[in-house]
Amino acid sequence: MRDALIAVQQRVEQQLTHQLSLLGLADQRLADAMTYGVLNGGKRLRPFLIYATAEALGGRREQADCAAVAMEMVHSYSLVHDDLPAMDDDDLRRGKPTCHIAFDEATAILAGDGLLTAAFDVLANAPHQNDVQRLKLIRLLSAAAGGAGMVAGQCIDLGNVGKQMSLEQLETMHRHKTGALIRAAVQMGAVVASEQPDAAITQALEIYANAIGLAFQVWDDILDIEGDTATLGKQQGADLALNKPTYPALLGMEGARTKAQDLIATAHAALQQVSGDTTVLAQLADYIISRDH
Amino acid sequence: MRDALIAVQQRVEQQLTHQLSLLGLADQRLADAMTYGVLNGGKRLRPFLIYATAEALGGRREQADCAAVAMEMVHSYSLVHDDLPAMDDDDLRRGKPTCHIAFDEATAILAGDGLLTAAFDVLANAPHQNDVQRLKLIRLLSAAAGGAGMVAGQCIDLGNVGKQMSLEQLETMHRHKTGALIRAAVQMGAVVASEQPDAAITQALEIYANAIGLAFQVWDDILDIEGDTATLGKQQGADLALNKPTYPALLGMEGARTKAQDLIATAHAALQQVSGDTTVLAQLADYIISRDH
Repeated sequence: MRDALIAVQQRVEQQLTHQLSLLGLADQRLADAMTYGVLNGGKRLRPFLIYATAEALGGRREQADCAAVAMEMVHSYSLVHDDLPAMDDDDLRRGKPTCHIAFDEATAILAGDGLLTAAFDVLANAPHQNDVQRLKLIRLLSAAAGGAGMVAGQCIDLGNVGKQMSLEQLETMHRHKTGALIRAAVQMGAVVASEQPDAAITQALEIYANAIGLAFQVWDDILDIEGDTATLGKQQGADLALNKPTYPALLGMEGARTKAQDLIATAHAALQQVSGDTTVLAQLADYIISRDH
Repeated sequence: MRDALIAVQQRVEQQLTHQLSLLGLADQRLADAMTYGVLNGGKRLRPFLIYATAEALGGRREQADCAAVAMEMVHSYSLVHDDLPAMDDDDLRRGKPTCHIAFDEATAILAGDGLLTAAFDVLANAPHQNDVQRLKLIRLLSAAAGGAGMVAGQCIDLGNVGKQMSLEQLETMHRHKTGALIRAAVQMGAVVASEQPDAAITQALEIYANAIGLAFQVWDDILDIEGDTATLGKQQGADLALNKPTYPALLGMEGARTKAQDLIATAHAALQQVSGDTTVLAQLADYIISRDH
């Protein structure tokens, strides 16, 4: 699994570099900040999902490149904005200064805006895709990233810092904040493989994505308490310090572990409904709750 | 001209309200902030250009609605972000509290992100357009709004506050910061009227757009010195106070006026190359340098 992740990371970084070079960025500082924000040593989990889904459904790797790039541009912009002083006020991400620390706040805001805009540029010009696929990809990504998805999740999150949250409210927040993009990743992977993907298969993949997306968050909450700062690349206990609602706080540590394991079992069950070789998707599910950062 | 502008303003506000209602915004505070940011009493100059161009080239008004909405979502998001404390730090826009004052900084950042994302959602789902047109509109808007256009212009602007700028540097900044979207407005107006607009006509329209876009900035600089705060809806002398480079500072007040008039003459000359009824576009050019806010 580690090798497969690293292979995707390398491919995505190459593709991101290539696509950034096509944008005609007209200001060097902006170009540097956008590059810094997106070539950030990320796990590339969402691109991995796009590639693995596309390949499970018979697609070729190069058909998924632009979707992977656009997805990671959107994910990266959201991290750059989330780290801002007015939001989570983080100085460190994956062991490196956050974008507004490495540059400045204004540049970080604009770099995020530039990355978000570029994502749609990349999809609208995607090779190996026809116009129907390009538009489907744009619809999926904009719906997942916008005020019905990720941006709403961030707003819900900010509105609940320091408040008591029920399990249901916490899940609603995660379903929007991170779940929407993870779900979009499998949907986009299905579209790059086929203009008209099978509805039942797509639905099963969405159940898989919802489950691993939530499991990822549960596991992150556990790592925030049990991990150490060096391995995490961010301040251990940061969520607790901000008094953010977490799964261990609501369910206890063992309850949170059980929850994560149940979700991964749900993900595996959903993959049984998908014809095609889903080995890699299954391995990814197991990885989610075995990682230490 | 005043009546025509008001008619477009009313249509755009209706269409914006309609499109916002289709987005499925999942957080009320975010929805309120996005609505506040975009239903802001703006002049709707860019939508006006889209409608006027589409109609000059034989298009119907409803064919231009989604392009107008998407354009104004992008323009409005850029104002919300530009007003932030880390950027221009403006408390007032068009006589009303800016978005981060009316809400808070985090919500304003997210509302801007949500509006930018929504613009591409609207274009990807635009009725009265085929897939080729939808994708052309998305390409035009993303290229104009991103790091090759508007966002780069804002970066250039911020990088030059308090510095001496040559006339050429000032024009490069404006060509990106505001010119790119204004040029995109006529390009998008041409595309909504026809999947394959005439290249020579589009080129003439771009010359027209470049000229009125720059004239608009020159006139804004003049108004910033000569206008009064109540009419402008923002602090008179704000640019001077920030030591921002302006046309009057570089050319003197009379030189700036002559520059604006020359640009409008260029715009009129370009319209001579456009077959179709360009009366409204010509009237808009004259309005640019006669307005008092």
